[in-house]
Amino acid sequence: MSKRNAFYAQSGGVTAVINASACGVLQTARSASPAIGTVFAGRNGILGALREELIDTSLESEQDIAALRHTPGSAFGSCRLKMPDHEQDPAPYQRLFEVFAAHDIAYFFYNGGNDSSDTTLKVARAAEALGYPLTCVGIPKTVDNDLPLTDTCPGFGSAAKYVSTSILEASLDLQSMCETSTRVFILEVMGRHAGWLAAAAGLAQDTETDSPQIILFPEVIFEPERFLTQVREVVERDGFCVIVASEGVQTGDGQFLTDSALTDVFGHTQLGGLAPLLANMIHERHGYRHHWAVADYLQRSARHMASATDLEQAWAVGKAAVEFALAGQTAIMPVIIREQSVPYRWRIEAAPLDQIANFERKMPPEYIREDGYGITRAARAYLAPLIEGEAYPPYENGRPCYVRLKNTRVPAQCPPYTA
Amino acid sequence: MSKRNAFYAQSGGVTAVINASACGVLQTARSASPAIGTVFAGRNGILGALREELIDTSLESEQDIAALRHTPGSAFGSCRLKMPDHEQDPAPYQRLFEVFAAHDIAYFFYNGGNDSSDTTLKVARAAEALGYPLTCVGIPKTVDNDLPLTDTCPGFGSAAKYVSTSILEASLDLQSMCETSTRVFILEVMGRHAGWLAAAAGLAQDTETDSPQIILFPEVIFEPERFLTQVREVVERDGFCVIVASEGVQTGDGQFLTDSALTDVFGHTQLGGLAPLLANMIHERHGYRHHWAVADYLQRSARHMASATDLEQAWAVGKAAVEFALAGQTAIMPVIIREQSVPYRWRIEAAPLDQIANFERKMPPEYIREDGYGITRAARAYLAPLIEGEAYPPYENGRPCYVRLKNTRVPAQCPPYTA
Repeated sequence: MSKRNAFYAQSGGVTAVINASACGVLQTARSASPAIGTVFAGRNGILGALREELIDTSLESEQDIAALRHTPGSAFGSCRLKMPDHEQDPAPYQRLFEVFAAHDIAYFFYNGGNDSSDTTLKVARAAEALGYPLTCVGIPKTVDNDLPLTDTCPGFGSAAKYVSTSILEASLDLQSMCETSTRVFILEVMGRHAGWLAAAAGLAQDTETDSPQIILFPEVIFEPERFLTQVREVVERDGFCVIVASEGVQTGDGQFLTDSALTDVFGHTQLGGLAPLLANMIHERHGYRHHWAVADYLQRSARHMASATDLEQAWAVGKAAVEFALAGQTAIMPVIIREQSVPYRWRIEAAPLDQIANFERKMPPEYIREDGYGITRAARAYLAPLIEGEAYPPYENGRPCYVRLKNTRVPAQCPPYTA
Repeated sequence: MSKRNAFYAQSGGVTAVINASACGVLQTARSASPAIGTVFAGRNGILGALREELIDTSLESEQDIAALRHTPGSAFGSCRLKMPDHEQDPAPYQRLFEVFAAHDIAYFFYNGGNDSSDTTLKVARAAEALGYPLTCVGIPKTVDNDLPLTDTCPGFGSAAKYVSTSILEASLDLQSMCETSTRVFILEVMGRHAGWLAAAAGLAQDTETDSPQIILFPEVIFEPERFLTQVREVVERDGFCVIVASEGVQTGDGQFLTDSALTDVFGHTQLGGLAPLLANMIHERHGYRHHWAVADYLQRSARHMASATDLEQAWAVGKAAVEFALAGQTAIMPVIIREQSVPYRWRIEAAPLDQIANFERKMPPEYIREDGYGITRAARAYLAPLIEGEAYPPYENGRPCYVRLKNTRVPAQCPPYTA
């Protein structure tokens, strides 16, 4: 097998463990050095390839590569960029393969979620159509947990652990204060179309009536009157009410309950501000004192409380991506197959990208309690293993030691990119 | 010394380590058993005394008492209750001492912040004036870090560690995304009148220009135009801008920038929340995409990332409170005296409550950078030791094991309370 180089990049919203996947790719590629030469990382995702902003990862020390395992964010920068179909616009792909050819790149590893899988598939199809030999492997990542075929998506387990721990802690706080002060606490979590992260809050419960007493999912139509009645009943029963709400909660007409004028490049509406909206609604009706929190980036970057299970899976899909590529598999993604839940056992298989890209896995109805405000035993059995185990970063002077790579650029060999 | 009982209660907003102070009180009182009989805990602070809702802590196991060290929230419930002066209204104090006499209570331990210190002092004065022999000791606690005389307030160090770690993680996230997506991230933290928690975010910086590039303190008058210019300059310099804002940021006329009136100075309608207000302001002027988070209760209940230093101090002030009381000191509070910063060395002394109650310690000018948007080297030297050391709770099945006490009520011996 002749020695060829590889391209690796991270795309879309980042997670607490996406760099652990990078670590899996880089460590495996290094140990497979007879087959793979240099892994070039793209600065800011596929943009780094288009702009020929390539990072020579061979210049990073073993120690720094290993430290990626405990460093959140994206070591090389990420991007949100919608690629066209090559039939409609081959230009970006011609440019991509011009750059790849200049650097002898034969492997394309793209680490991301739904939109990134779409990109990887498009690159694979364009490579075939335009006759550039390229092995294309997607690497799963998303706190939204909405990729199909895989048991879970690396990044989700850690965010889920953050949400369930945080809501357990905040519930103890609220319960302490409710007699003379705050009655209602609302935490808004990520999840535009799928309620997986909100569901994870249910893991804080020992029994079905424990807090959080109300969880709002995008999969359940929000009915204001029924919700307000439920809040009152919970406060009257328990003295306090903890609510976890997915940012993507929708009304009966299919609109997001809260909305903003901003629209992202994929046409999604950018959300934010559901928690204060609900707090206001409750206060106006019932007069309860309330507090609310919006976790936003904190939940997806909280490497300080990563799930050890999630971390292991993130590393493993990176490793498997390289192995599958070396075995000649293309247009695929390593996915996680659950063998059993207690104790959790899983293996990795290759799944075709055309069955993953542009499919969105929502919470199945059997995971949502009949009243729509909680999770079922089946959901608990599914979710529980994903937050298992602690994997703390090292600390120095009370601060986590997160690595910053040297990120040395490879000299450009192609003309500047003009998009 | 005759054996007498004690009353202990927790008051005001709770913290990640207030139960560690309870643990210090209870463990020390148990080992001092020749002098102290039973420690009765008040259900929901001093309300528990007024309503004669007393918890018999002697019925809790050694193991559960020890587990208070790693359990956030308030083990016995807290309250916000303003007590009158006994000269104006002796009735609540007559009731208090009626309950205390019925249960042979000679020691009063009250664990809280500014308002709770005021309560402890009032109880001490009323006891003297009404002739009920009672030793009254306050125990410091507040994430706001605004009590005078003490080097720091238990609860603050852990919240500070949460804020500095979270903003470090969110900064890595934002930096990853800024090329094609979000440019500005805003985290709103607690601190209505003092910017200590916002200042703690500065510990995430290695150099003065690191993120968070802008910190907004209540101590610095907010100037919208200067702020918006600073944001633009930072984004142009770094590509992204991380902002940490104290909830209590004020305008030149002494008003909170955002308030329950729901209208901001620019005429936007707000559902509450400084972070979305600032985000909106920035978006309208500069068009930057933004994300924002409000930590709220999460920051003060995050026992999962307590500071080991803070935890040790919280336990130590509980222990010292009992020792000072046994030595006959009253109307005092154990405070922390810094002996040196590197390595951090401290001891505990008794300070008179009348010099603590109703004084609020703000950030001194020498801790705030000249431009008002960051902390100085002096602030860093002060803050750094307070977040040192990690003190993780035990976990089971991926969840922290927080104890719930039995909280067995003592049978009432007085007539019902009528306030």
